[in-house]
Amino acid sequence: MTELIYEQPLNEKTRSYLRLEYLAQQLQANLDQDHQHRCFYPLFSLCELTERCDYRGEILKDLDRQLFALSKWQSLPSINDEQVERYISKLSTCREILQASQRPGHELQKDRFLSALRQRFNMPGASCNFDLPQLHYWLAKPWEDRQCEYQDWVSHFASILSPVILLLDLTRQTTEYQLQQACGGFYQGCSKQPLSLIRVKLAAEQGCYPTISGNRNRYAIHFVKFDQQKHSDQTIEFELATCA
Amino acid sequence: MTELIYEQPLNEKTRSYLRLEYLAQQLQANLDQDHQHRCFYPLFSLCELTERCDYRGEILKDLDRQLFALSKWQSLPSINDEQVERYISKLSTCREILQASQRPGHELQKDRFLSALRQRFNMPGASCNFDLPQLHYWLAKPWEDRQCEYQDWVSHFASILSPVILLLDLTRQTTEYQLQQACGGFYQGCSKQPLSLIRVKLAAEQGCYPTISGNRNRYAIHFVKFDQQKHSDQTIEFELATCA
Repeated sequence: MTELIYEQPLNEKTRSYLRLEYLAQQLQANLDQDHQHRCFYPLFSLCELTERCDYRGEILKDLDRQLFALSKWQSLPSINDEQVERYISKLSTCREILQASQRPGHELQKDRFLSALRQRFNMPGASCNFDLPQLHYWLAKPWEDRQCEYQDWVSHFASILSPVILLLDLTRQTTEYQLQQACGGFYQGCSKQPLSLIRVKLAAEQGCYPTISGNRNRYAIHFVKFDQQKHSDQTIEFELATCA
Repeated sequence: MTELIYEQPLNEKTRSYLRLEYLAQQLQANLDQDHQHRCFYPLFSLCELTERCDYRGEILKDLDRQLFALSKWQSLPSINDEQVERYISKLSTCREILQASQRPGHELQKDRFLSALRQRFNMPGASCNFDLPQLHYWLAKPWEDRQCEYQDWVSHFASILSPVILLLDLTRQTTEYQLQQACGGFYQGCSKQPLSLIRVKLAAEQGCYPTISGNRNRYAIHFVKFDQQKHSDQTIEFELATCA
């Protein structure tokens, strides 16, 4: 059985974080394996997002909030002290690095190779040989060389990506999954405590996926049959986690 | 030694053909190997190009022109009859299929899954889990299933891609490479016979790539050092083929 996890952010900040985390995973995939010119899609997406928005302030505030919360937890007797300390240490490191960092991606704007590629990459089929002979040249380099260069480009974003991954990790850990049923393919819930993230775990074999909407106090989940691309009217068993 | 071939189209038609051929190669790469969500980039590029422009008329005209030329060749005593006949047979098959075909990609516009993906794919990092839960579902399907579906989507473009590949193959075969020297990293040439395609073969070890410009009677090649991203002033040895 293939279990899939679907997530829906319930506020703008978590939405940004999930997008950054997704791009971080894509960058890592391109470091692990040679995906040729395809490796530039997530890199340029990240360049564009960080140009539009400086995430540093928001992330710093979040790191402080979590560090404060964890330091309070530390004093409780029922808490796994070692784990909390490990998180505090990781968060503090991220904080130091982020505070000392330049705006991420800023340096890459000066890279003439990347700039030339980026101009073309959103045009259909424009990573063609004659559009970008320099790309053709670059792709013929040994994979190890390209990997090093890619690692260098990626490292420009580490100061925001590492804390985002850590913060989302902490968010996800606040709640455990609970078994739920969606009658007629529909489920809704509410919470007095403000929520930031809905997580739905669902067996692929059910043949459907959830579309989730909501705000911090209310949310609704519709299950859609993939093959027919329309709402299911079945009772769907799934697992739900609602994270603060 | 890694030899790289750089090409430059000298007219709009050849430019379109090279772009289509490049996308055809990308589609094939995505059929040969699982590239996850990345497989949609060339597919959507092809959708966009074929929506903007109906290539069928141009390709049909070209097929007729080539068939006429080859039938004249057939009568010459010095010609490899078998090879010519093989081309005539292939071109005729392409012609029949193309003439009977609908506008390529037209059917795919009705595909709700693809349409939903396409709307999002040009936004930075927008193939995220929460943007496209249906993509998350699709990617969890067995590769063999996805391969079959992809094959089906790709097949919608075969009526134009197969003849384009064949026509470019014929174009490239009209000329053999000749050794040339670019003094001070620059070369220019002219031709009384109208040209459609310039091809430059160059060892990667020279550390540079060519930027080619021109029209059907004249062309210029500048060699650019990759590492410095500026024009070379060295004498560059390369091979050149100018195709009619």
